[in-house]
Amino acid sequence: MHQLVKVQNFAVSGDGFGAGEGQSRERPFGHADPGSMFAWAGATASWPNRTDPGGSRGLDDYFTRDFAHNIGAEIMGRNKFGPQRGPWQDHDWRGWWGGEPPFHTPVFVLTHHPRPSFTLSDTTFHFVDGDPATVLAQAREAAQGRDVRLGGGATTIREFLDADLVDTMHVAVVPAVQLGAGVRLWVSPDELLDRFHLEVVPSPSGVIHHLFWRR
Amino acid sequence: MHQLVKVQNFAVSGDGFGAGEGQSRERPFGHADPGSMFAWAGATASWPNRTDPGGSRGLDDYFTRDFAHNIGAEIMGRNKFGPQRGPWQDHDWRGWWGGEPPFHTPVFVLTHHPRPSFTLSDTTFHFVDGDPATVLAQAREAAQGRDVRLGGGATTIREFLDADLVDTMHVAVVPAVQLGAGVRLWVSPDELLDRFHLEVVPSPSGVIHHLFWRR
Repeated sequence: MHQLVKVQNFAVSGDGFGAGEGQSRERPFGHADPGSMFAWAGATASWPNRTDPGGSRGLDDYFTRDFAHNIGAEIMGRNKFGPQRGPWQDHDWRGWWGGEPPFHTPVFVLTHHPRPSFTLSDTTFHFVDGDPATVLAQAREAAQGRDVRLGGGATTIREFLDADLVDTMHVAVVPAVQLGAGVRLWVSPDELLDRFHLEVVPSPSGVIHHLFWRR
Repeated sequence: MHQLVKVQNFAVSGDGFGAGEGQSRERPFGHADPGSMFAWAGATASWPNRTDPGGSRGLDDYFTRDFAHNIGAEIMGRNKFGPQRGPWQDHDWRGWWGGEPPFHTPVFVLTHHPRPSFTLSDTTFHFVDGDPATVLAQAREAAQGRDVRLGGGATTIREFLDADLVDTMHVAVVPAVQLGAGVRLWVSPDELLDRFHLEVVPSPSGVIHHLFWRR
């Protein structure tokens, strides 16, 4: 069975940005407010960070609970892992997620500055330098027959799209958020129609789910 | 964690019937054509009976691939299991699904006429006589902490709704199919709004997904 490469639950602003400008320790999404970008997911029963009971079990919950379905590894860009640039100064930085990251699989972090792998709970982070196809081969092997999630950010997704390595992509467009500048995924989703089917599904929560799969 | 009772991927005609009249060995859905009722699911990549490669990976595929998510047991009515009525004449009948049923868990078949349990591949069928709450207690124990799928048909779902034992329900309404008579789930989904939230999500395939969860 073919191992898919999947983008899942990736939120972009109405004007096409996955994150704002000015990332820092305090602001992982720069001037974008992650609470606004992911409110649709945070309101669902299956949101992994939920601390209170309840939550919706409508359409958006299907997307949040599908996040781990048959996923065996994740690939992410360095800026999803942390705000540092250049050679690692601080090996104490172990990601934004605390001691229980939501991945539960091997994670391959793209960086030109390798550092030793480490494990937090059931997530192991590997730091790899290579072109998308090479890193994907590593992630596929680690996924042991399951699919590979391409976790973002937008720059990383664009690199894999440019290399034609993406099989399916779920992007939640948040029309209420307009960023004006930042890390852009697209000017318009129509850019991808030459290679992908697209279904556009408005959710009662206000986000518009965009579902792409290869032609 | 609470074990949910879930109706999943249950298709009804535009006029509210889960099956037609005149069930027989040759026609499990009576005068309804199952190909028309389940065309939306059959077109997806995750449809378990798919024999050719391909299939859509849009909205409908989320529903088909969610079918087994965290499910530990199924409860079904006798008419979902087979066309026989009254005492079992034919113990050779082992359901419509051949040697590899799509359940992969214990299945509890509601019947006033018990017969011995049997196993096909990784699905074991049990035949139980009892009110919905009693049978649900058995299914919950067998599900070992996971959720319980309420598989239908419409009469069985109505019994569990009447007993207020259903937590979530996904019904795919197929407007193109009008049956006029048969086994009715509802006159209108609005009948359930006193107890359930409802999201109505039209799919590009033409079916209208109805997602209910408890208030």
